[in-house]
Amino acid sequence: MDSEDLRAQQSVAALRQRIGALNGDALDLILREARTHNGWTPRPVADETLRQLFDIMKMGPTSANCSPARLVFVRSEEAKRRLAPALSSGNLKKTMAAPVTAIIGYDLHFYDHLQYLFPHEKDARSWFTSSERLAHETAFRNGTLQGAYLIIAARSLGLDAGPMSGFDNAKVDAEFFAGTSVKSNFICSLGYGDPSKIFKRSPRFRFEDVCQIL
Amino acid sequence: MDSEDLRAQQSVAALRQRIGALNGDALDLILREARTHNGWTPRPVADETLRQLFDIMKMGPTSANCSPARLVFVRSEEAKRRLAPALSSGNLKKTMAAPVTAIIGYDLHFYDHLQYLFPHEKDARSWFTSSERLAHETAFRNGTLQGAYLIIAARSLGLDAGPMSGFDNAKVDAEFFAGTSVKSNFICSLGYGDPSKIFKRSPRFRFEDVCQIL
Repeated sequence: MDSEDLRAQQSVAALRQRIGALNGDALDLILREARTHNGWTPRPVADETLRQLFDIMKMGPTSANCSPARLVFVRSEEAKRRLAPALSSGNLKKTMAAPVTAIIGYDLHFYDHLQYLFPHEKDARSWFTSSERLAHETAFRNGTLQGAYLIIAARSLGLDAGPMSGFDNAKVDAEFFAGTSVKSNFICSLGYGDPSKIFKRSPRFRFEDVCQIL
Repeated sequence: MDSEDLRAQQSVAALRQRIGALNGDALDLILREARTHNGWTPRPVADETLRQLFDIMKMGPTSANCSPARLVFVRSEEAKRRLAPALSSGNLKKTMAAPVTAIIGYDLHFYDHLQYLFPHEKDARSWFTSSERLAHETAFRNGTLQGAYLIIAARSLGLDAGPMSGFDNAKVDAEFFAGTSVKSNFICSLGYGDPSKIFKRSPRFRFEDVCQIL
């Protein structure tokens, strides 16, 4: 056995000894009581916070570790002006007022990085280059998983998140990803939310409505 | 202001007072040190645990609260036999050995439930019925976000997760979702992982490789 394999096994066993599960407050923070935010306090989001955010989200699982998400953090007034024409009317004002808005994109040519990301399978690139449909689906699915990890990572750090898909993807692609193989997926404002802008929570399905145990 | 709006605002403000951020152990559990598992201890996963899992994941954000994910928990020997023919050779044995494997599907007709899920916008259904492409993209994107919430919720409860997309979606759809508007997205084994089956961690991108701050 490789010594790095052994180290990985010890690390997982140690994790289990340190912590068995999240407590109620932690569950509330990342999912149960967390809310999509529409209003923001003026408190800014530092470069260092965005780096911490990425260092957490990047560890989430993707198929063959393909990690197709590509992020643009729109923070300056100039960058916001470039984003504005792509936003739906309902999303414009709140996005301009957010400290930062992440554009979560996915790279259709993610497979060009598999030699680095998935080094133990030398043929991994060929799994995806043979079918454009599979490559697109893999990029979109896994880039979206990473978008969810970003939302959870933000909340884990005490940030609030306001994810949105109400915008013109083609306009964002032309403005921010021209000449690349990256396509926009969704956008997500990040900052410290203003609780007075929260609305009541919408209903959720019951287990019986959408789950089966077979 | 609606009294439920006020209650929501108080709940968010109280959350901020109770907990500012996750501690290092909690971050390790849900993302930083968590690993995709390939081997499982015999410890079973109870119905009650699957219900807890759903009650956490369902609170994650989706576009217009559309909540398109549909879950089948494959746990019995009979259900595993139905799943087996759809699995890739590399995923077969470990999936049969897992205590339970969730099939995460998405409902293309999610919009038929928006009157319940998004009651304050009476026209929400029409946003999606006018374009089959938009409906499909919305179902796939948001169903995938919910799949990521499921992975995080599982880890939060002390379960391990083994997400996989190496299977024949058409076979799974025919076997588990025939005659419905649900399509399979990915599958995810759940249980208590065997640390001795972990391999060394694959590399991740650096911030500079895939992120820009503008």
